[in-house]
Amino acid sequence: MEDLMKRFNRPIFLSALLAVTANTCAAKSLNDVMERRGLTEKDVLAAAKTYVPTGKRDDYIVFSSGGQSGQVIVYGIPSMRLLKYIGVFTPEPWQGYGYDEESKAILNQGRIQGKDITFGDTHHPAISETDGDYDGKYLFINDKANPRIAVIDLHDFETKQIVVNPVFKSSHGGTFVSENTEYVVEAAQYPAPFENEYVPLEQFNERYRGGMTYWPFDRKEGRIVAEESFTVMAPPYSQDLSDFGKGPSADWTFTNSFCSERYVGGIERGRPPFEAGCSAKDTDFMHVVNWRKAAELVKAGKATKINGHDVLTIDTAVKEGILFLIPEPKSPHGVDVSPDGKYIVVSGKLDSHTSVYSFEKIQTAIANKNFEGKDPYGIPIIAMQAVLHKQVQLGLGPLHSQYDKKPCVIYTSLYVDSMVAKWNYCTGKVLDKISIHYNIGHLMTMHGDVKHPEGKYLVALNKLAIDRFNPVGPLHPQNHQLIDISGDKMVLLKDMPVPLGEPHYAVAINAKLLKPAVRYKSGWNSRTNKRSAYKTRAGREKTVKTPGKVEVFGTTIRSHITPEIIEVTEGDEVILHFTNLERAEDETHGFALYGQNVNLSLEPGKTSSFRFIADKPGVYPYYCTEFCSALHLEMEGYLLVKPKGYQEVAMEAEVGATYTEADYDKQVKENVATQAVIDQVVGFITSHNYQDFPSVVALVEDATDQLGFAKETKAKSEAAAAKKDWQNAALWANQWWQYQVKAADIGLRAKTYLEQHGAKKN
Amino acid sequence: MEDLMKRFNRPIFLSALLAVTANTCAAKSLNDVMERRGLTEKDVLAAAKTYVPTGKRDDYIVFSSGGQSGQVIVYGIPSMRLLKYIGVFTPEPWQGYGYDEESKAILNQGRIQGKDITFGDTHHPAISETDGDYDGKYLFINDKANPRIAVIDLHDFETKQIVVNPVFKSSHGGTFVSENTEYVVEAAQYPAPFENEYVPLEQFNERYRGGMTYWPFDRKEGRIVAEESFTVMAPPYSQDLSDFGKGPSADWTFTNSFCSERYVGGIERGRPPFEAGCSAKDTDFMHVVNWRKAAELVKAGKATKINGHDVLTIDTAVKEGILFLIPEPKSPHGVDVSPDGKYIVVSGKLDSHTSVYSFEKIQTAIANKNFEGKDPYGIPIIAMQAVLHKQVQLGLGPLHSQYDKKPCVIYTSLYVDSMVAKWNYCTGKVLDKISIHYNIGHLMTMHGDVKHPEGKYLVALNKLAIDRFNPVGPLHPQNHQLIDISGDKMVLLKDMPVPLGEPHYAVAINAKLLKPAVRYKSGWNSRTNKRSAYKTRAGREKTVKTPGKVEVFGTTIRSHITPEIIEVTEGDEVILHFTNLERAEDETHGFALYGQNVNLSLEPGKTSSFRFIADKPGVYPYYCTEFCSALHLEMEGYLLVKPKGYQEVAMEAEVGATYTEADYDKQVKENVATQAVIDQVVGFITSHNYQDFPSVVALVEDATDQLGFAKETKAKSEAAAAKKDWQNAALWANQWWQYQVKAADIGLRAKTYLEQHGAKKN
Ligand SMILES: [Cu+2]
Ligand SMILES: [Cu+2]
Repeated sequence: MEDLMKRFNRPIFLSALLAVTANTCAAKSLNDVMERRGLTEKDVLAAAKTYVPTGKRDDYIVFSSGGQSGQVIVYGIPSMRLLKYIGVFTPEPWQGYGYDEESKAILNQGRIQGKDITFGDTHHPAISETDGDYDGKYLFINDKANPRIAVIDLHDFETKQIVVNPVFKSSHGGTFVSENTEYVVEAAQYPAPFENEYVPLEQFNERYRGGMTYWPFDRKEGRIVAEESFTVMAPPYSQDLSDFGKGPSADWTFTNSFCSERYVGGIERGRPPFEAGCSAKDTDFMHVVNWRKAAELVKAGKATKINGHDVLTIDTAVKEGILFLIPEPKSPHGVDVSPDGKYIVVSGKLDSHTSVYSFEKIQTAIANKNFEGKDPYGIPIIAMQAVLHKQVQLGLGPLHSQYDKKPCVIYTSLYVDSMVAKWNYCTGKVLDKISIHYNIGHLMTMHGDVKHPEGKYLVALNKLAIDRFNPVGPLHPQNHQLIDISGDKMVLLKDMPVPLGEPHYAVAINAKLLKPAVRYKSGWNSRTNKRSAYKTRAGREKTVKTPGKVEVFGTTIRSHITPEIIEVTEGDEVILHFTNLERAEDETHGFALYGQNVNLSLEPGKTSSFRFIADKPGVYPYYCTEFCSALHLEMEGYLLVKPKGYQEVAMEAEVGATYTEADYDKQVKENVATQAVIDQVVGFITSHNYQDFPSVVALVEDATDQLGFAKETKAKSEAAAAKKDWQNAALWANQWWQYQVKAADIGLRAKTYLEQHGAKKN
Repeated sequence: MEDLMKRFNRPIFLSALLAVTANTCAAKSLNDVMERRGLTEKDVLAAAKTYVPTGKRDDYIVFSSGGQSGQVIVYGIPSMRLLKYIGVFTPEPWQGYGYDEESKAILNQGRIQGKDITFGDTHHPAISETDGDYDGKYLFINDKANPRIAVIDLHDFETKQIVVNPVFKSSHGGTFVSENTEYVVEAAQYPAPFENEYVPLEQFNERYRGGMTYWPFDRKEGRIVAEESFTVMAPPYSQDLSDFGKGPSADWTFTNSFCSERYVGGIERGRPPFEAGCSAKDTDFMHVVNWRKAAELVKAGKATKINGHDVLTIDTAVKEGILFLIPEPKSPHGVDVSPDGKYIVVSGKLDSHTSVYSFEKIQTAIANKNFEGKDPYGIPIIAMQAVLHKQVQLGLGPLHSQYDKKPCVIYTSLYVDSMVAKWNYCTGKVLDKISIHYNIGHLMTMHGDVKHPEGKYLVALNKLAIDRFNPVGPLHPQNHQLIDISGDKMVLLKDMPVPLGEPHYAVAINAKLLKPAVRYKSGWNSRTNKRSAYKTRAGREKTVKTPGKVEVFGTTIRSHITPEIIEVTEGDEVILHFTNLERAEDETHGFALYGQNVNLSLEPGKTSSFRFIADKPGVYPYYCTEFCSALHLEMEGYLLVKPKGYQEVAMEAEVGATYTEADYDKQVKENVATQAVIDQVVGFITSHNYQDFPSVVALVEDATDQLGFAKETKAKSEAAAAKKDWQNAALWANQWWQYQVKAADIGLRAKTYLEQHGAKKN
């Protein structure tokens, strides 16, 4: 006790913390926790800055590329809690992605020359923009390994489209969007012939090409219009990252490059490797393209068709004055246009300088034809010195830059130094530096690549974690570090291990700008965003048999799948459609079937399908894979595949458990008692303004459904009892009770919600 | 300023926090953060209890099932940070799982009747045990949808084996291990014929069966010995969870069940659904099996072969006295043996009672043949009242239980009530209750299912998150809630959204017990845990061409792939093997190739392979998918597929950039300067006791390799210069510099490590 008093007298803490009762204080006080866990004051501040209590929300939502996992990662800031992995280029069964027919159709769009490609190397996500700021409607992401772009709808966080680049064989510098998402740009990486044919490496200079592909986006349909896309061809330099201009520079894109040496390695045949030949020169080239004029040229028929796709050749681009080159320091990585669109910041990763180019000076040089020469392909080269605003020595291995809310303030990642530099790109002054762990690639500030950055936080996307986390084998997680940039000095707040994939770039959006749905319209095909042709309503379930084919129109609801028995014949094509009848938030059902590689994720309202050939006679149990309710294990059924030519034998099933009149009476008594509880809950809800709460309205609708079912089964039970069929009377009475219990459960959820959200009495 | 002073004078916090300088204090003080972010004192305490500063480690490592994602999830406690998703039943490209030949061989073991099944519904992980406590060597996990078990080696966190249950068509109640991991048990779920054939549902009682399969584990090989497994057949009750006994009960397993009504639904044909018929009776059955005796019976030839697998029929099991039934309250879920092995705790989810059975009483009843009757299959039924120790009313929907370090203290999840109850299973007294969000399924305490529980933390594995997190569309994350159980009252610490999959059960192990490796032995096939036949050493790379086949034995090292050019002919079978030459922690390389669906994850030392048919002529760039070094983008190559019958034309490649004597001299000058830096670093390292640090030894070995390469390329450069071949002289000089830079980089990493870990001067 004395010891306890001593603790009280020590000059510690929040007086309020001391005010808690003595018996719990010793164990719980912040001071004790700090001592026990070896935390510094800085640690506690960082903990308090990042902790998000149960039920509270994060301020920003991050969309991060998932690298070779082929997925997009969603997490919250400041908590750094992962919220979702979205299946994009790689099938993912929890989401049913690649396991239902609707999503297979999306993945099939991504086939490369007829082959299924079941992964992607996602690199750079981009949020759709309106007037140069994020609008939170769509997300785009590229695949470097097999040049593709995916469209994700932020209404439901699902992938809706994959388009394949028709001319590139790899693509790193995508995706970036124009100010009003008219176009998504994607640059090539490793040069290759545009045609899908063999060209010897000896013809690298003549026939291998790079370029920038511009994909128009139809915002109303939420889809890229692939047939109207076009490519501006570029020399066989390895094009790297791109950015769209903003404001004054909005009609332009900027794409940098490495290996403008056009070197071809071959270490196995005694030649210096690519890394030697591709890093020999002091400068590479930024590609400056007037995309708006390019689009007009394509419309005007100036494009050449390659693989059926519109390509503006280098000659055309030069002749029409839409393509220029500017030298930039050795092997640049990021090209980042300032919020006002006046500057372009480029870091050469093998140079310690970061260069700030002036867009105005670039325009002047172009207008005055102030070129220092032409590259071997005839593209005018603008002299670097003529258009440089500043060049700043930040440290070793500068890569990418992001902008702050404060004017002229910018943050640049330093890969080799493992640091972030904060500096002023107007004056060139370095303001602060912070060490990260380890080897940062991209970095991200809040809205840091659009017209109105919000500052506040920075995330360092580190490429190595090494010793930061508990070891989990030779393959390490990546490390995203959250840094507080609200003050003058950057402060490290938190390390987040990335458990799957290697993120490259990420974008963060103010959570207020996202308005995702919690359910689909009833009977919805989420991938086409249209009513499903297979929508099935409660009571309208059916199994349609035609020669060689069995088609099931089924439903799921707490806690049964309709139908529960499906009989087919060996060799039949079996097509299953299920509609989830639920409306309540988070009431997803699943569907898995033994031996057939299917898992459907049926969120409220969704309709999903699965088809297979029943090629082996047997017994195939199926069940709901989501723990949706107390009776989820009983949410089961059997698909039976009869052998071809099977002769039905009339059989009477032996009954398992049997029930008596007493069983029936006992159940009815319980049901009457349960109804009293339900009436109370209903009374509470209807005596309050529940209609003002959309989530409660959905719950009330679900509960009303369940009560309707209860009424139907009550009638069945009573009808059986009237016939003294106690077996069915007792079973239906039990089912009547199951419906009641579900109605009560949903009702209680609604009541709790109303109580917690200040509903008013009518 | 006055405002600032006011803040200082307010009765706040940790005096130490106040001691920081005035200009940063206002923004940074804990009080300010609390006010700004709306945190309570309880929140700050919870934040401090769970925050793990950069570079510090978590105390416990959790292995959680990933549900329908088919994966296993790894996270840390108390930080609740996800550390890894381990690919198990579902291919995952970041890990190369299902994308290299070695891991495809594992996934192929899991084929069901010849079909690829690319997902699993993982339910219950189990850590290998020695003397009834976790030993941290292996992890087992089951697939419910397609009854399978996977073995994960905790040496490298990789899946090494998948076995398919030869008689079940679904399996929920696995995996659980015996005290010394002699066996892994897996119970069936939905009854089905053991034979792979059609049996009408009318013969459900006669020919559908359940059971428990026992898989022996060869600890030395780290593999399940599938051919020595056997199954104890059980009636067509839906067997559910199992547990192995401990201490006095170690020779026994306990498996509960639901739907002992043996009800077959059919709502679509007017029958009450499964949920009605499977929840009608007040009790179901616990299956009590003497597995040790069962194993002896199998060895003695008493088993019947079904599908080539040993099955002890019900008749045999009854006759030999190894199978008994005990009634348990309605639809139980968890069956959990106490640390001392004396009690078995079972909760009936449709009953508010949790039952504590006495193992001693069970043994007495068996010895005295004190049975209340037999089930329809002749299995003796032990009267519940004869063997009950206690029955306790905890709340609605009790499911699972886990044990505390404190004697007799147990925690039980209440699904319907959304609570955890803490109670005393010796006295039956309820000690505390806490609300969770929402609808808890399993729960987990530290080492809570073995002989020596460690208490401290509890995780509630909730099935619904609803409103807990920022919305991410209709499909919600699950919610794992961390609860502090060190005091008398349970305290909620933190919510963790699960971004992928629906975990069912999880196990947590003290981090000290895990000793994963950070690299493989050189040239290692990690899946067989043997030296790869395709191991390739530096300088021994080769491409072997035979008619119709091209086989590449390649390597990866910062920053090039050898070979850089691979030429094959249309129609060739192409086989690629790559060995990662690195030894440094976290120096993984990847390998992706355009259009061929491959991504290798080459952790240090690993050898991986990929084979495909080069069916289309063309140009296929490949590259390293891991951002491994400053020149990772240059870590590239080309696979060229020539058309069948292609006529080679002698061509001279036009050179891109050209270099002069001045370029060579400039580079050599830089290299000499760089060598001076390297010498300094080497001096530091060798003047300290670096050999005492294994991670530094690995770095030094890598750096030595790079310096060796530098020496070789220096010679090549000088030889070219002697011949006045300035082109090659300059390029090799640059490569020499690249090797120097990598050596310096690795050396600096070693130096920093030594400085930070208190290395001593020799
Ligand atoms: Cu369900
Ligand atoms: Cu690499």
